[in-house]
Amino acid sequence: HYSVLNPLKEMKKNGWNISLVPVDECGLINAKDIENEITDSTVLISIMHANNEIGTIQKLKEISLIAKKNNIIFHSDGVAAAGIIPVNVRELGIGAYSFSAQQLHGPKGVAALFIKKGTRIKPIFLGGTQEKGRRAGTENVPGIVGFGKACELAKIKMEDNIKYISKLRDNLINGIINKVKNVKLNGHATDRLPGNVHISFKYIEGESILLMLNMEGIAAASGSSCTSQALKSSHVLNAIGLSPTMAQGSVLFSLGKYNTVEEVSRLLEVLPPIVKR
Amino acid sequence: HYSVLNPLKEMKKNGWNISLVPVDECGLINAKDIENEITDSTVLISIMHANNEIGTIQKLKEISLIAKKNNIIFHSDGVAAAGIIPVNVRELGIGAYSFSAQQLHGPKGVAALFIKKGTRIKPIFLGGTQEKGRRAGTENVPGIVGFGKACELAKIKMEDNIKYISKLRDNLINGIINKVKNVKLNGHATDRLPGNVHISFKYIEGESILLMLNMEGIAAASGSSCTSQALKSSHVLNAIGLSPTMAQGSVLFSLGKYNTVEEVSRLLEVLPPIVKR
Repeated sequence: HYSVLNPLKEMKKNGWNISLVPVDECGLINAKDIENEITDSTVLISIMHANNEIGTIQKLKEISLIAKKNNIIFHSDGVAAAGIIPVNVRELGIGAYSFSAQQLHGPKGVAALFIKKGTRIKPIFLGGTQEKGRRAGTENVPGIVGFGKACELAKIKMEDNIKYISKLRDNLINGIINKVKNVKLNGHATDRLPGNVHISFKYIEGESILLMLNMEGIAAASGSSCTSQALKSSHVLNAIGLSPTMAQGSVLFSLGKYNTVEEVSRLLEVLPPIVKR
Repeated sequence: HYSVLNPLKEMKKNGWNISLVPVDECGLINAKDIENEITDSTVLISIMHANNEIGTIQKLKEISLIAKKNNIIFHSDGVAAAGIIPVNVRELGIGAYSFSAQQLHGPKGVAALFIKKGTRIKPIFLGGTQEKGRRAGTENVPGIVGFGKACELAKIKMEDNIKYISKLRDNLINGIINKVKNVKLNGHATDRLPGNVHISFKYIEGESILLMLNMEGIAAASGSSCTSQALKSSHVLNAIGLSPTMAQGSVLFSLGKYNTVEEVSRLLEVLPPIVKR
């Protein structure tokens, strides 16, 4: 995600050595590839927990063991994972974990960074002594309270939600593959976020599918919301080796606990004629 | 304020030249002193609009003319001023103006930076394309909406509020000076925030006055809220040449539109016996 990639680019300009480790065609990182990049001066490994576009969930435990063995801080961007799938930073061996409220039905504009005790961080905001000097500025109290409540609620029914949403997801995936020709599911078949259905439609622009779905009252996305203004083809889809045409033809259907079986059935009725046009 | 001073210290470490311009015993900056510090390489002048501790309001217009003449960006920290006194960035000739919501009865944790068209800024947060690439990250929508409404409300009755609150302030100041011995009003007599009453009590700790006022149901402050955890004596009070004993004995009474004449009278009854003890 650019929230990690762009700061890394900036660090590179300032003289840091940055290695980007490739992913396979499912979006999975091979722990061996990380091990190969480690040098004596490596201080940080940062791996996205789950991808916000194609939904692939990384095997963080494997990577954290490598980080531990080499005494390297291990950060994971958990924005797309926290509140959706179980996250146990201790079990996963994570040193720093960032996640945000709006991904788990909390308020927009609040996020958190878990830091393992003893991990030293340099603050970005300087000034007041708030948050023990780690981030100056009056805290967003209503947002933080809402975030806390959202975390609490997300945890309570997580198991049930995962079962329910995964079933919707698998119905939708199987439905699309059976009813529409020339489609490809992106991301990993099983190591995948419960609500993620990312499909490439050959010969069709993702944007036109969205427009027609929109007329039917169905909201989906092409590309990530964070970069929708950039209008560039996704670096994630490039990284898994998708051709530019297939990338242009991709649509992300996101499912959550508020979606219903009926909505999925309706989408599966509406979608095939749209694609045929 | 440390929100400006600490980033400047950090910049100094990175090789920037920083000049701190002194203030007089009322906390006012002399525009001449700024002019004297300007060199060919000066790129920024930053002056606090109103001080959050002693309430002194700077003559920004004079300073902005100097900045303009020398083609220097002029920033003002308006956190203690915006929403309280009129701020017309065009008239004042300001290039960048920062202010926050909670100072004007808006939600905590939201702030704004006005930037004059054509002023280039380097983002601190990199990643998404939000806010035209100036600050990556999902926006705090509820906070921003609340901030907007708070600004709207602050503007509507500003004139009336200034009159009302200034009268409370002057009553409180005169009352304290008449009823309590060995006190000193800090800050400027007239160029002062309407709600600011900053008093030094000789021979008494500010903290003990606060404790006793608190038992009477009256909330006041010693030192700025942003640095209350730091327990250091205020750099603002040092800068106006207050002796350490007088600085230790200072209390800030903040008045707002929700305070009443009766509350001020009550404070004036309660305070003298507290100080006598």
